[in-house]
Amino acid sequence: MNVKLIISILGIIVFFIGVAMLLAIPFSIYYSDGSLFSLLGSSIFCIVVGLLTWFLLKTPAIEVNTREAFAIVTFAWFAMSVFGSIPFIVSGKIPSFTDAFFETVSGFTTTGASILTNIETLPKGLLFWRSMTQWLGGMGIILLSLAILPILGVGGMQLFKAESPGPTVDKIKPRIGETAKVLWQVYVLLTFVQTLLLILGGMNLFDALAHSFTTMATGGFSTKNLSIAHYNSAYIDIVITVFMFIAGANFALHYRALKGDIREYFKNNEFVFYLSIVLISIFISTLLLTISHNYNSFSTAIRYAAFQIVSIITTTGYSTADYEIWPYAIQFILLILMFIGGCAGSTGGGIKNMRILILLKNGNAELRKLIHPKAIVPVRYNDKTVPQDIINNILAFFVLFVTTFVVATIIMTTLGMDIISAMGAVIACLSNIGPGLGSVGPVDNYSHIHLAGKWILSFCMIIGRLELFTALVIFTKVYWKI
Amino acid sequence: MNVKLIISILGIIVFFIGVAMLLAIPFSIYYSDGSLFSLLGSSIFCIVVGLLTWFLLKTPAIEVNTREAFAIVTFAWFAMSVFGSIPFIVSGKIPSFTDAFFETVSGFTTTGASILTNIETLPKGLLFWRSMTQWLGGMGIILLSLAILPILGVGGMQLFKAESPGPTVDKIKPRIGETAKVLWQVYVLLTFVQTLLLILGGMNLFDALAHSFTTMATGGFSTKNLSIAHYNSAYIDIVITVFMFIAGANFALHYRALKGDIREYFKNNEFVFYLSIVLISIFISTLLLTISHNYNSFSTAIRYAAFQIVSIITTTGYSTADYEIWPYAIQFILLILMFIGGCAGSTGGGIKNMRILILLKNGNAELRKLIHPKAIVPVRYNDKTVPQDIINNILAFFVLFVTTFVVATIIMTTLGMDIISAMGAVIACLSNIGPGLGSVGPVDNYSHIHLAGKWILSFCMIIGRLELFTALVIFTKVYWKI
Repeated sequence: MNVKLIISILGIIVFFIGVAMLLAIPFSIYYSDGSLFSLLGSSIFCIVVGLLTWFLLKTPAIEVNTREAFAIVTFAWFAMSVFGSIPFIVSGKIPSFTDAFFETVSGFTTTGASILTNIETLPKGLLFWRSMTQWLGGMGIILLSLAILPILGVGGMQLFKAESPGPTVDKIKPRIGETAKVLWQVYVLLTFVQTLLLILGGMNLFDALAHSFTTMATGGFSTKNLSIAHYNSAYIDIVITVFMFIAGANFALHYRALKGDIREYFKNNEFVFYLSIVLISIFISTLLLTISHNYNSFSTAIRYAAFQIVSIITTTGYSTADYEIWPYAIQFILLILMFIGGCAGSTGGGIKNMRILILLKNGNAELRKLIHPKAIVPVRYNDKTVPQDIINNILAFFVLFVTTFVVATIIMTTLGMDIISAMGAVIACLSNIGPGLGSVGPVDNYSHIHLAGKWILSFCMIIGRLELFTALVIFTKVYWKI
Repeated sequence: MNVKLIISILGIIVFFIGVAMLLAIPFSIYYSDGSLFSLLGSSIFCIVVGLLTWFLLKTPAIEVNTREAFAIVTFAWFAMSVFGSIPFIVSGKIPSFTDAFFETVSGFTTTGASILTNIETLPKGLLFWRSMTQWLGGMGIILLSLAILPILGVGGMQLFKAESPGPTVDKIKPRIGETAKVLWQVYVLLTFVQTLLLILGGMNLFDALAHSFTTMATGGFSTKNLSIAHYNSAYIDIVITVFMFIAGANFALHYRALKGDIREYFKNNEFVFYLSIVLISIFISTLLLTISHNYNSFSTAIRYAAFQIVSIITTTGYSTADYEIWPYAIQFILLILMFIGGCAGSTGGGIKNMRILILLKNGNAELRKLIHPKAIVPVRYNDKTVPQDIINNILAFFVLFVTTFVVATIIMTTLGMDIISAMGAVIACLSNIGPGLGSVGPVDNYSHIHLAGKWILSFCMIIGRLELFTALVIFTKVYWKI
């Protein structure tokens, strides 16, 4: 394994993190919020460290092998979070390294879990940087899930080998470059459109941009203590609900739609499944909210149900209502949606609709086989037969996901959390959602969590974001054998 | 499908239920508890209905095909429960048919969930019949899981095709006969030994027999309101802990051990896995109980931890302590053990250790494949490579189990149960345990559950007991196509 190569690439990433910080400075200056020095200093530090690492260690251009790719991807998120947390620490706004690291991991993994008890006291420059960590993380994830993971053979993402836009050459470099370019154009375009729409709804540029960043990334950091409930505007709720839904769908499909092929959405099994789950969940929740008289009118019930359902399944984590006072059935449905998550190739986290769909199809195929033991019943996805090794791969993902969830929850309960809160916190972090249930519900935050718990949850956010395999493979014996 | 054949076989089963009821009558007479008429009448009714059905519909001896086998097995448990509930209804002790059916399903499926608020007021004769339903159900399950399901191809049980004792001819009839005979001998022998040991510990014959019946069946019905806590005896706790553990292991292994081959236990991957989980869980729980000062001494902590852990993982459901006042971490571990359950070929329910082990091995194999994409990494179980179709089958079982759990929990929360209680009740019934969490914890019962909820839970007990596929296949379209 070429450790120099790995570290030099991490150097480039740290350099770009430093450059990105500069973008928060205009807001810092405009609002004269006192965060200028912290941001500028941190930025320069990152740029210098990044460049030095790159220049001192850079190796002649060589191919990255599979093993190195796993290390680069995993440590990239770790390095981004360590260096990205510097402005929070040096400004004294989040003095504890654990807290600052947690908040920044939560940003780059687009989770949105926060240890801040009063978000609005943060200087605008830092708030902007906080939202930007999510936007950058979202960009990284789209690229990772549509261009890198399919090649690495992670958790069934091979199904998307042919789906990534750009020339499908089988060499990593040109393909990643092309794919990245077109997908980021879509991502930037959608962010721009949403920002405009939010400004039309009365938000100022700062808040509109910050919220568009965290919507498109399905991140869920808000600049307001009350999250989107702060605006109490049906228009803003609707705009954000729609854009969260878009961000939770496969960006390769958006790319095709922008090229004029809207029908692709409805030919795509995963998108149809995702849409169906969202609609059915909204329907049931609206019904239950109306019956239980949580809201006076059907239209109010549907507005709040739709926002919360879409926010959770897309793993965004904004809130406009405290679903913990809603009927238990809705809370349990939300808990299940937390596991399902967004679509593969979106910025959303969780198990992903594609995997759930294939697992259900396999279950159905096995039931048929009981009656016709000799029949060959293939599992079909997007009109193709899913190869057996991909089904196995998805099975392994599912088992690994559940196992990680169980182990992390056991640890959190050992630290004294009750079962519902522990399950909620772990799944909210593992699926990169943000708010969970119990003491980490939509109107709570993560500040009260035990120090060790914050590290466990940070770890969950990273491995969840990297589709488990990518990060966990590094802990296997076979990874370290030559 | 030969419906006459199916119904005539159900007739035989009802006949045997009637005969079995007669065995409760000696206790009814000895204690002059007033249940004689109810038991005798019900018995005669079952015998007459059973014989009439058999004689009127019996067909010349023909082979049962797969489709008919699924119907017979599923409706057998249903018919047993309907007819087995008659003594409770006619005696007026459980006047509601829903309640009586729930209690009897809970018996024959060896679940142990009860709607009785004061068990000790029931006449001894009825209490004996109640314990016997579990013992008979346990017998049925051993036969089903080691002789019938492997042939039907249900949920990976094919792995046990070669394991069942008796001549391994590939025709159903002689094999089932032989297998049944030797396994029931083991079952009866173990029940007898436990009864003796309990009598030595000071129980009277009635209680010793009743508790041995429900231990060996991993059923968990007790004749006492306080369950085993009633006796407050370390000796009885230890005897029952050991026999619950035995009942949760594969009876084919016990058969071999009795034939002198004790080492078979430790060559068996599932048994070693089961033993490890039990020991690790007891260790962690004892540690937590000691740290949290729930018990004064380490030995008391280990006694109560071991009893509760073994009771839950084997899906027995006896209790000697209210684990709901124990540290959250232990409660969560117990919740996970509820999903795992006993070994295949035992009387225990749940997902089964064999399946969990193979799923974990598959996960590990997939992680290795990431590093060596072209390597062939087989999943090995008991020194044999697990065929791919069996892995798929087990995957489907797992997904079906989780899906059933989720759907049933959504329904229970819709009926107004809180999330923890709903999850606890559903898994306690689906895994055939008995006590769950929340409002159906070890010191509670199921009497307060909504009428519709009792039917849903009865349904869960039956499909859980029949390894899901067996019962659910009947609801598929393909089952009804010719």
